[in-house]
Amino acid sequence: MTTMGIHEEDRLTEITGRLERQLGFVVEIDRLKGVLRETLIGDASRRENSAEHSWHLAMMAVLLAEYAPASTDLIRAVKMALIHDIVEIDAGDAFCYDPEATAGKEDRERLAAERLFSLLPADQASELRELWDEYEEMSSPEARYANALDRLQPLLQNMSTEGGTWRMHGVEKVRVEARMQPIARGMPDVWPYVEAALERALTAGWVR
Amino acid sequence: MTTMGIHEEDRLTEITGRLERQLGFVVEIDRLKGVLRETLIGDASRRENSAEHSWHLAMMAVLLAEYAPASTDLIRAVKMALIHDIVEIDAGDAFCYDPEATAGKEDRERLAAERLFSLLPADQASELRELWDEYEEMSSPEARYANALDRLQPLLQNMSTEGGTWRMHGVEKVRVEARMQPIARGMPDVWPYVEAALERALTAGWVR
Repeated sequence: MTTMGIHEEDRLTEITGRLERQLGFVVEIDRLKGVLRETLIGDASRRENSAEHSWHLAMMAVLLAEYAPASTDLIRAVKMALIHDIVEIDAGDAFCYDPEATAGKEDRERLAAERLFSLLPADQASELRELWDEYEEMSSPEARYANALDRLQPLLQNMSTEGGTWRMHGVEKVRVEARMQPIARGMPDVWPYVEAALERALTAGWVR
Repeated sequence: MTTMGIHEEDRLTEITGRLERQLGFVVEIDRLKGVLRETLIGDASRRENSAEHSWHLAMMAVLLAEYAPASTDLIRAVKMALIHDIVEIDAGDAFCYDPEATAGKEDRERLAAERLFSLLPADQASELRELWDEYEEMSSPEARYANALDRLQPLLQNMSTEGGTWRMHGVEKVRVEARMQPIARGMPDVWPYVEAALERALTAGWVR
């Protein structure tokens, strides 16, 4: 133990308080690993959880940046991909093709965002909350990009698993197409790929 | 179907080839969700997989950026966190306190990096490969930061689960301390927190 001046001790106490809030949040969000989505992982052995889904999405944000809207700031888009589902820790995942599950979703998620982000120091709480609001409202290039990726990722999972949850729930092609519209808007160069995939899915009987 | 000029058709064919390689890689790395680590998730209900671990690490890279080495470029550090374990798709995860499991690890991982990254278009393959090499060699501020986070994350998991895999495998405090050294180097302001945590772990009997 070395002798410290008062100022050095104050600085350490300040760092410790801030760091403890940050690490408290890191420990809390571990629970996202226990939130299951309808989507299956690629070998169809089990349902995907929202933490690994968010990793996949952040990887896609890095890999597909060249198709993002003009003036997309990559680090902001990656942050959105990482945090976009964190509210599910409290609010759960709602299957997008089930109207009952999606009722009240917005209110539940808003309450969750308030509780969860406020675990962080105020500056970080408001940064992440703003990013999450932007994502929900699709109100920036980054948000339009991240939303497009969030549609593309389950499409890839369902194509890998011979229709996956589309087939399990008898979803119609026209509903998937409607759900995929953020891709047409946010990543127009990728849209022809999506249309071709859905044609294949229809021919194979994976969508109706 | 609209009529297109030759150049427009060429452009679309080029995009399609590149996009297909990129999406092929996205589908391939889904397998990281099936690679299990020794570490448990926070409720101790099951082992953590490397995809959700990588998500947690990327979140930490965003949240703890203020403790990173000077001149750390956040997006590079986040990319490293996202890809650092991808080689485990071929090479598996080696438990860090098991010398038998770690033997030959380097060669296996290098072969895996060659196969996996080369699925991507050449420019992206070399960008990610360079980031991964840097991470392995701890040869940049971003790499020192990402390595420190990769030590801190399992410490938090083990502290949340009353010793978790430390206790299961009877690991000594001195070995954990040695393993945590990248934190002392890459995030010196966080090191006092780690020391205090390990003292608590010793008192509680979670490490020997």
